[in-house]
Amino acid sequence: MAKPLSLDEDRLFPAEPRVRDIARALYHEVRDLPIVSPHGHTDPSWFALNEPFGNAAELLLQPDHYLFRMLHSQGIPLEALGVKEGAADPREAWRLLAANYHLFRGTPSRIWCDWVFSKVFGLDVRLEAETADLYYDTITSALATDAFRPRALFERFNIEVIATTEAPLDTLEYHATIRESDWQGRVITAYRPDPVVDPEFEGFAENLAALSQLTGEDCLDWQGYLAAHRQRRAFFKQMGATSTDHGHPTAQTADLAPDEAERLFNRIKRGGALPEDAELFRAQMLTEMARMSLDDGLVMQLHPGSFRNHNAALFARYGRDVGADIPLATDYVHGLKPLLDRFGNEAGFSLILFTLDETAYARELAPLAGHYPCLKLGPAWWFHDSPEGMRRFRRMTTETAGFYNTVGFNDDTRAFLSIPARHDLARRIDCGFLAELVAEHRLEEDEAHELAADLAYNLAKAAYRL
Amino acid sequence: MAKPLSLDEDRLFPAEPRVRDIARALYHEVRDLPIVSPHGHTDPSWFALNEPFGNAAELLLQPDHYLFRMLHSQGIPLEALGVKEGAADPREAWRLLAANYHLFRGTPSRIWCDWVFSKVFGLDVRLEAETADLYYDTITSALATDAFRPRALFERFNIEVIATTEAPLDTLEYHATIRESDWQGRVITAYRPDPVVDPEFEGFAENLAALSQLTGEDCLDWQGYLAAHRQRRAFFKQMGATSTDHGHPTAQTADLAPDEAERLFNRIKRGGALPEDAELFRAQMLTEMARMSLDDGLVMQLHPGSFRNHNAALFARYGRDVGADIPLATDYVHGLKPLLDRFGNEAGFSLILFTLDETAYARELAPLAGHYPCLKLGPAWWFHDSPEGMRRFRRMTTETAGFYNTVGFNDDTRAFLSIPARHDLARRIDCGFLAELVAEHRLEEDEAHELAADLAYNLAKAAYRL
Amino acid sequence: MAKPLSLDEDRLFPAEPRVRDIARALYHEVRDLPIVSPHGHTDPSWFALNEPFGNAAELLLQPDHYLFRMLHSQGIPLEALGVKEGAADPREAWRLLAANYHLFRGTPSRIWCDWVFSKVFGLDVRLEAETADLYYDTITSALATDAFRPRALFERFNIEVIATTEAPLDTLEYHATIRESDWQGRVITAYRPDPVVDPEFEGFAENLAALSQLTGEDCLDWQGYLAAHRQRRAFFKQMGATSTDHGHPTAQTADLAPDEAERLFNRIKRGGALPEDAELFRAQMLTEMARMSLDDGLVMQLHPGSFRNHNAALFARYGRDVGADIPLATDYVHGLKPLLDRFGNEAGFSLILFTLDETAYARELAPLAGHYPCLKLGPAWWFHDSPEGMRRFRRMTTETAGFYNTVGFNDDTRAFLSIPARHDLARRIDCGFLAELVAEHRLEEDEAHELAADLAYNLAKAAYRL
Repeated sequence: MAKPLSLDEDRLFPAEPRVRDIARALYHEVRDLPIVSPHGHTDPSWFALNEPFGNAAELLLQPDHYLFRMLHSQGIPLEALGVKEGAADPREAWRLLAANYHLFRGTPSRIWCDWVFSKVFGLDVRLEAETADLYYDTITSALATDAFRPRALFERFNIEVIATTEAPLDTLEYHATIRESDWQGRVITAYRPDPVVDPEFEGFAENLAALSQLTGEDCLDWQGYLAAHRQRRAFFKQMGATSTDHGHPTAQTADLAPDEAERLFNRIKRGGALPEDAELFRAQMLTEMARMSLDDGLVMQLHPGSFRNHNAALFARYGRDVGADIPLATDYVHGLKPLLDRFGNEAGFSLILFTLDETAYARELAPLAGHYPCLKLGPAWWFHDSPEGMRRFRRMTTETAGFYNTVGFNDDTRAFLSIPARHDLARRIDCGFLAELVAEHRLEEDEAHELAADLAYNLAKAAYRL
Repeated sequence: MAKPLSLDEDRLFPAEPRVRDIARALYHEVRDLPIVSPHGHTDPSWFALNEPFGNAAELLLQPDHYLFRMLHSQGIPLEALGVKEGAADPREAWRLLAANYHLFRGTPSRIWCDWVFSKVFGLDVRLEAETADLYYDTITSALATDAFRPRALFERFNIEVIATTEAPLDTLEYHATIRESDWQGRVITAYRPDPVVDPEFEGFAENLAALSQLTGEDCLDWQGYLAAHRQRRAFFKQMGATSTDHGHPTAQTADLAPDEAERLFNRIKRGGALPEDAELFRAQMLTEMARMSLDDGLVMQLHPGSFRNHNAALFARYGRDVGADIPLATDYVHGLKPLLDRFGNEAGFSLILFTLDETAYARELAPLAGHYPCLKLGPAWWFHDSPEGMRRFRRMTTETAGFYNTVGFNDDTRAFLSIPARHDLARRIDCGFLAELVAEHRLEEDEAHELAADLAYNLAKAAYRL
Repeated sequence: MAKPLSLDEDRLFPAEPRVRDIARALYHEVRDLPIVSPHGHTDPSWFALNEPFGNAAELLLQPDHYLFRMLHSQGIPLEALGVKEGAADPREAWRLLAANYHLFRGTPSRIWCDWVFSKVFGLDVRLEAETADLYYDTITSALATDAFRPRALFERFNIEVIATTEAPLDTLEYHATIRESDWQGRVITAYRPDPVVDPEFEGFAENLAALSQLTGEDCLDWQGYLAAHRQRRAFFKQMGATSTDHGHPTAQTADLAPDEAERLFNRIKRGGALPEDAELFRAQMLTEMARMSLDDGLVMQLHPGSFRNHNAALFARYGRDVGADIPLATDYVHGLKPLLDRFGNEAGFSLILFTLDETAYARELAPLAGHYPCLKLGPAWWFHDSPEGMRRFRRMTTETAGFYNTVGFNDDTRAFLSIPARHDLARRIDCGFLAELVAEHRLEEDEAHELAADLAYNLAKAAYRL
């Protein structure tokens, strides 16, 4: 007999009854606040075209690197899951997920998926081998209906604003379509220039050529290259962007003299950069981007410390984003100093820092954000976007940086259906943390109520200038 | 008056009553499962010869570096404790432990020792200065009886299988004796080649000569040296081994071209290796061992990150293993890449990773094990084999790697009598962790029951191919 | 209407009722123990001259870098707060603190401040914009009365002994005044030689010249320089010092041959040292100081791992100590080895280690302190002197180092009025930690009572030889 699936009303709250009571009361006031999603990876074409999603595997399994990563770790080939345009039968792929769903016990993927299954699709039995087809059919049928088209889900999810992420070469045509449509959903872009900023990005030299083409600037000339960025940033801003996003391997910044920067650019612009030149160029570009942010007001985000494509064989076969990005120890104190020496005390400049290296929370990030006016801390990120990860974030940053140097939650996901689940999880964990502070008389209850709303909603709007 | 010693039935469970109730129920079902001890340092001669253990100090104090390390840290000389064949009177050594037993408050040694005192020897007063002689006499008398001989204790402890650890130069005669005896206890070996793999090991060149002698291979020739390893691995496997074990200072691996590897071997084979050559050779040998594991099916274990013999004066006087091994920050992401590039996606290859650097749990180890099919995470190790250490391990690995990329518990100890205490502690802590997940509705109760048995018993058997 | 301010009797204890009951009982026995403050930064002139403190802003806001750092991080200029002799109106500065007091939610500053407001000044409404003037007037008026002069507060706070920190160039005249007075308060100094030990300290060469002048030794000669240290240490000891304190950027030590040390000194003594020479000289001086400690019995303290004056613009404008000191990853295992190789096993030598890098707690510091007789662990320090920070300290050090390789609490503060608040916080958190151990049956209740007093009082006296 199938096992029941039900989401307990008190899930994710601390177990101690008085703490739980406080958490429940706090959560009660924020559970229905609209979702502000200032950083993520949903596909704007969904909202532009509003076509139905495909089947369960295509929507929920194949694009979700949290899911196929874990299955791969237990010896299930990516081909069998149909990842990256694999030819696998989607129902068979889904059955593999179902039969191995126990692997996700104790992981946030389990929590997000169960939320989607229960709340979005009304399923009331647990996913396992024997319910695989029931799940596949239920989900796939629902997706064919109008109520499950992207715009309908966007509204049902009570999303106030969502940001996607695009490279400078993107023409943002889907964003244009959305803006020109009569649909009122607010979908904005964010400027992610890695493909034309990172000399080690695949196709970097070709990307510069394309950027020249797109902007009419000569992007083999340092000034032309910078002008092209300014032009694209202005265009992105016009299409709603309020932020830029930078996914560097390290947090290194540089502040070279103009002629040094130009010589460096000339060394790297045709591809084949030496590793140390590539690193220095990325470092310099963070400072250039900071300078442009001071001019155009776009909030800057830095996501450093991922060793991308660690699995060489998989990268050769499938390319990027197949779940082999591994965190690295990251030095913010020395790394950020050149940029901070230049712009750290500028009013109006805002830099949101993320990390995959939790040792930096209490040691580096909270002290930096608790001092520099321009710095804020992004929420627990990626591998740490989880109950324990979020608790560690709060426990290790709050005492030095406070709550008001953080920016609320963002989901950072391409798994559209899980977005409300992720925000719900974050709200519950934050309310639980606040409840512990109240129970230990480290915070008054009226303050906790104010903070619960700030963490769930207000801080994100303010920090991202939405 | 002596203070009572009693082990509370609820010890080590979380304090919150409902969580404790769940933990107790989970523990009830795993408390009596047999002990699987796939990695440790007991002496096979105990089980081969089955001679009585000596006195309390000789069995419980002098070989236990957790105990004499702490006493030494408070200024008690190792001589006075009779460590390393010191001439100290064992009763006097025991009295020193007793009088300083308060030093162990809050440490796992205290928990293990109290278990041994209470459960193995039936003592019901606390160890302190005034009970020192009572303890010494009670324990020493008991050890003289048949019920306390090694095989009797092995059976009383309900050990299903235990692995010892031997170097390639070991002839495994005691293992042969055990196998030829009519005793049914399963005692197997594991292949620990550090003395002939680490160019900085004491007597490395002599060890190679002895390996030549033992195997008939020319171990000053690269191919002969590798053939000798294959021969000894086959012999170890015949004597029950299912695993190898590698205790390197770092997690560095290498994958040199064959001629490069040979030239490197020729540089280091006569001893006096340059530090960078020694490091590179150890790195290369991990990849060679992985290659052999693919052939012979032995599971590979890597225990990196200990600065051995940190106290120069003590090392000069007493040699290895006198408690001055200090953990180091360890980089797995870059270190393992050469080996993983070569064998990371091989079906049938299994590499179990341990760490003394807990910062790697969430940042490196869980993401690696949550992706690579060959990788599994060993349990909290050595300094972290403790209530808080185990909780940190679960909290920091589960959300990314899940439970099924971990391998259950192993005791890694030479303190034979403490083995059940250590497994009991691990089972209690794991049940407590699962209970917290259940209480927070992050896991269903039926799943927790299944997991409790997996963590206590099934995963170790499967991971070590027992 | 103003919100009430009241300090709950159970504040900072764990929420679970049975744990809280145990914590309360433990705390009840230590709450009134005298304060031993063996390391801090109060100003000896306060106790020498016993003049009234000024106004609320001057006493509580302007010298407190925890407070103005956070306000600065949210864009409030230091000028407006009157930091570093800024000309700001103190009432206006105080109003800025009041209006932004919500920034401190969840931080220890909030807990300390509320204690001071409530217990020292009897305020019973919360600090916020509308109570700013009430606060300012109440505090400022009280400070004008005899009951709030330094000596009266010292006695009211039940301080048994307090150590200040002075550089070798300090003449300790205020300490002399105190000793010559008929006041019985015990105020002692500590020897902090950074200005004449760190070649990168501002004015290093001038400081050496001044040291020559003061001691009559030729401090441009290596032997004369060392003799000057010995002379000043003897003088400091005469003025009550029982310890030295060393605030280095790293934990690096060195043990050079005498002629090498002399050549190094000759390279750095005139200022303008190369960074690697500066680092090596600091490293060597730690070993020299250890040698002197063996002779004169002063306990040595090492506080490494702060990147001082990270904010270049603020440092240029305001100089040191304006809240831009940022922690660094710190390596103790390699760093301390030269010193430990030389003096690590010496009876009578004592070195207390602090850290801002919590990753070293379980990985390096507890294993080192749990082995070397000379090493002890200082309490959670600076950014980590907080409820969560102290809990992490205990959770990550106790299982390996025990309690008796730690030294109790020290407040390390210049915020005199907050000293009892800080000790109270530490006592509550330690009692809560002990209570958890008791509730989980990891410690007996009688042992917890003994430990509570040791952690609150006895260990500090013993470790600092007071």
